[in-house]
Amino acid sequence: MARISFIGLGNMGAPMSINLIKSGHDLSVFDVFAQSMESVVAEGAHAAKSAVESAQNVDFILSMLPGGKHVKELYLGQSGLLKSIAGSKTVVIDSSTIETETAKLIARHARENGCSFVDAPVSGGVGGAKAGTLAFMVGGCDKDYQLVKPILECMGKNIFHAGDIGAGQSAKACNNMLLGIMMAGTAEVLNMGKRIGLDPSTLSDIMKNSTGSNWALQSYNPAPGVMDNVPSSNNYDGGFRVDLMHKDLGLAMELSRRSESPTPLGSNAYALYSLHKSKGAGGLDFSSILELYLANKTE
Amino acid sequence: MARISFIGLGNMGAPMSINLIKSGHDLSVFDVFAQSMESVVAEGAHAAKSAVESAQNVDFILSMLPGGKHVKELYLGQSGLLKSIAGSKTVVIDSSTIETETAKLIARHARENGCSFVDAPVSGGVGGAKAGTLAFMVGGCDKDYQLVKPILECMGKNIFHAGDIGAGQSAKACNNMLLGIMMAGTAEVLNMGKRIGLDPSTLSDIMKNSTGSNWALQSYNPAPGVMDNVPSSNNYDGGFRVDLMHKDLGLAMELSRRSESPTPLGSNAYALYSLHKSKGAGGLDFSSILELYLANKTE
Amino acid sequence: MARISFIGLGNMGAPMSINLIKSGHDLSVFDVFAQSMESVVAEGAHAAKSAVESAQNVDFILSMLPGGKHVKELYLGQSGLLKSIAGSKTVVIDSSTIETETAKLIARHARENGCSFVDAPVSGGVGGAKAGTLAFMVGGCDKDYQLVKPILECMGKNIFHAGDIGAGQSAKACNNMLLGIMMAGTAEVLNMGKRIGLDPSTLSDIMKNSTGSNWALQSYNPAPGVMDNVPSSNNYDGGFRVDLMHKDLGLAMELSRRSESPTPLGSNAYALYSLHKSKGAGGLDFSSILELYLANKTE
Amino acid sequence: MARISFIGLGNMGAPMSINLIKSGHDLSVFDVFAQSMESVVAEGAHAAKSAVESAQNVDFILSMLPGGKHVKELYLGQSGLLKSIAGSKTVVIDSSTIETETAKLIARHARENGCSFVDAPVSGGVGGAKAGTLAFMVGGCDKDYQLVKPILECMGKNIFHAGDIGAGQSAKACNNMLLGIMMAGTAEVLNMGKRIGLDPSTLSDIMKNSTGSNWALQSYNPAPGVMDNVPSSNNYDGGFRVDLMHKDLGLAMELSRRSESPTPLGSNAYALYSLHKSKGAGGLDFSSILELYLANKTE
Repeated sequence: MARISFIGLGNMGAPMSINLIKSGHDLSVFDVFAQSMESVVAEGAHAAKSAVESAQNVDFILSMLPGGKHVKELYLGQSGLLKSIAGSKTVVIDSSTIETETAKLIARHARENGCSFVDAPVSGGVGGAKAGTLAFMVGGCDKDYQLVKPILECMGKNIFHAGDIGAGQSAKACNNMLLGIMMAGTAEVLNMGKRIGLDPSTLSDIMKNSTGSNWALQSYNPAPGVMDNVPSSNNYDGGFRVDLMHKDLGLAMELSRRSESPTPLGSNAYALYSLHKSKGAGGLDFSSILELYLANKTE
Repeated sequence: MARISFIGLGNMGAPMSINLIKSGHDLSVFDVFAQSMESVVAEGAHAAKSAVESAQNVDFILSMLPGGKHVKELYLGQSGLLKSIAGSKTVVIDSSTIETETAKLIARHARENGCSFVDAPVSGGVGGAKAGTLAFMVGGCDKDYQLVKPILECMGKNIFHAGDIGAGQSAKACNNMLLGIMMAGTAEVLNMGKRIGLDPSTLSDIMKNSTGSNWALQSYNPAPGVMDNVPSSNNYDGGFRVDLMHKDLGLAMELSRRSESPTPLGSNAYALYSLHKSKGAGGLDFSSILELYLANKTE
Repeated sequence: MARISFIGLGNMGAPMSINLIKSGHDLSVFDVFAQSMESVVAEGAHAAKSAVESAQNVDFILSMLPGGKHVKELYLGQSGLLKSIAGSKTVVIDSSTIETETAKLIARHARENGCSFVDAPVSGGVGGAKAGTLAFMVGGCDKDYQLVKPILECMGKNIFHAGDIGAGQSAKACNNMLLGIMMAGTAEVLNMGKRIGLDPSTLSDIMKNSTGSNWALQSYNPAPGVMDNVPSSNNYDGGFRVDLMHKDLGLAMELSRRSESPTPLGSNAYALYSLHKSKGAGGLDFSSILELYLANKTE
Repeated sequence: MARISFIGLGNMGAPMSINLIKSGHDLSVFDVFAQSMESVVAEGAHAAKSAVESAQNVDFILSMLPGGKHVKELYLGQSGLLKSIAGSKTVVIDSSTIETETAKLIARHARENGCSFVDAPVSGGVGGAKAGTLAFMVGGCDKDYQLVKPILECMGKNIFHAGDIGAGQSAKACNNMLLGIMMAGTAEVLNMGKRIGLDPSTLSDIMKNSTGSNWALQSYNPAPGVMDNVPSSNNYDGGFRVDLMHKDLGLAMELSRRSESPTPLGSNAYALYSLHKSKGAGGLDFSSILELYLANKTE
């Protein structure tokens, strides 16, 4: 049983922390929105008054925040979280999706304070967080990976060691860039298929049993009515929002620039999500990119 | 046991016809290159002197030719194949990959001659042709689909009814457009990953267990050394050639134009394969698109 | 003074034919819509009852039709126009914007009937047609170019000899592909500039005096209010319609496919116009592509 | 006559500073490479031993450095340049091409030290620097613009006031993104034209007199042999390097991300330059993008 400080109890953080409690760990939690802590406290967590307070005398800190600037503020900002645990041997795990460079920066500061740091972003969404079936992509040294693995296994089923510090973020950006390309590509093909007379269900069935097979066809078809229990059959409500896919593709674009890697398809997918978002679709599930392709009824 | 005329005994046609013979069918074959018939004759086929001769008194004609112009010439050209079987109730199956419009044109002529026609292009490559595990995408009426299904099952394991005449070709073009997008996208991501420090095997392993999963990652990884027994681990030799992917993406572009369907990613993938082919890569396997992304050693 | 049959008196054809009359030529005109001939007859043209009738005993036939299928029907269809003038030495000028291949096909038939043929599509729009300032891009042999040049000079100010038969159509498709890229690119830059705080007029002024200068910035700014007397300052009404730019980019895509020329930017521009058109913008001026980029007010 | 500190005497900075001297200004110059100062000292400049020394008791500081990190280091780094001139009323002009955000950051620090700052990147290349015909795009308040204008007029002929601080950099990034799109688009069209039989000179002549007209066609044709005295007719030697166009497109991508502006064509142009650069073309003139499109002789 480990003592864990969990910071950031949003849609993802709350169910993740509850899974840690259910595995027998001792949790001290914090969120800037006090009410976000309620469901977790009801499961047995201690509600701290600040991030610094939650992090005293713990074995692990786990953060799950919206973006790089929040993570930077948490660890390096005025509250002085990293400084407050200097010399404590606490292992810091950040599961937020942030810039590879920010992860490296915080790791450097953690090391200067005598702490370990791993970046461990997740894949699998709110459903995976609740079910405890998330995938974690861990960046850090092998020793730290071994330390955090049993903790992460309480929340996920695939715990990948992507490489050194930052590699978790890099791997997630790569995966989500490919996902963005595939989802838009699948939507594009289903739309064209329909316009030339192919039924979306039939065409999906053919392609998922052929070389066109991919995760979107298998588990997350963007065409309404082809699959049950996916956002496309629920008005694109819930799921993984266009805003978030747009953010993740932006992180991939940043990696593309820094590494001078050509990404014609990745940047095209980014542009398509950018067009889609700019028309007001940011809050819909990302499979709604199909709607960008649809012909207007008044055409 | 059916009497079948098989026309076009290339890399695909020869093993397909042999599988028909092995299933007990009676084959009369023809190819403009006489030596292409040898291996099939050795298995028991009758070598005809012309397409017209091979097609007399058969239940089915099955053609497997390089492109639309060859198919058009065969059925509607000077030899007069369709006319020679007028009124015979022969069922014509074309498994070539050709334009949807050409398939519809030939079907119209077949009908005028009292014959049935289905378009039934395949997916699965030479390996699938030999193993008898091809996927067939059939376009035609339900009655004709039921007639040809047992024949096609001798050569493949998934026999899809895509829709009316032409729908087989349309479905194949859709599938291969998605495949082209995914293969180039997967190559793009693996190249970027490598440049930011991620091992291609590790990244592939992560993505194929995550939302980035697709056929290329599962069965046909484009990065040399990640998988055995795929073209990327054999200097991109064999497999499905860049020339053919370029042709198939061109067929998809034709459908996109005719149906006025926006295909930003499909046309981008087409442009990438076009750049790759124009640099002399037409004869390599299509997963060699990874090489388009690689940084020159002298960079 | 030449005797000229002018076929197709739409928005372009009517003012073009009037300019020929004003130059002293003797016109016999035909249009499938009788009322389209009225304004031209009022200027002194003879209204024929059919295309064939209009073309008897003339020196030149000039056609200005919506697309390739209309031109094909006119010259090669049931009416038998080319046959009706066999052996007459009539010079056929087609100024419609059609496929290069269709132009070549008709030229072949014309030659078989002893006639000359040039393709001579125009640039400059309805405004240029009225003002007599069109640009003509002529495909044909030098002798025919010299024959038609004085006729075309009555309607335009730049009469280019693009090359052999079909070259006029090819040059127009090339020019309009570049125009489509530039207009969408200019719109894209002005939209981004505005979002980062640059006034569209100021930015336009800077770029048209810098290396970003192009025809759109000089003469056809897509941002409302920057220039007077352009469609963007008139609700994108009039001008060159999205439908027509989409058609012309489609002709360029056909050339790209046939010649196996990579066109990443051209096909991207085509996809953008296709998305724009599919949202119902087909009837707006093509500079309205700026609206595709705009953020929705409810964003 | 003003006292001016000029820092950064590379290919651009040296001729720019000489033009200031020729206009009668008193120059104190500095470059980390001492020999870079020689040609300017020969014209009458004082060679300082450090940036700080050069900047004492001057009216203006003008910097011309390779990128944002150099500019940041100069003004905010260890040497403490901004601090050394605190309260001096010196007007700082940075003509380097850098991130809009870096320009804003330095301006903030300048203000805190009681100095004025304008960003004033240039367009026109080494040729324009020598001839004194550069275009300057100035970001800053109107008062500062009026102050720096007479100084900049010694080096350029178009001095644009783009807007507030940072707007000069933003305008340059916008212009160069459009330039990148146009140059690649023009190369793409000329390549396709050639493959379908159109002579590059003839097609260029047609398009520059039509709606496809742009700066590349007018002044910088990418096809060898069409124009004299441009890099394409000199093995793409000299001019504006692929490396620099790639950098500038990267700056535009950064603006696109920050402002959430869709840039499908800009990011496509960036990908094309990235592919071109990754094949070893970084040192060639940027019009060499035509070579990316060329078919390999062994095709």
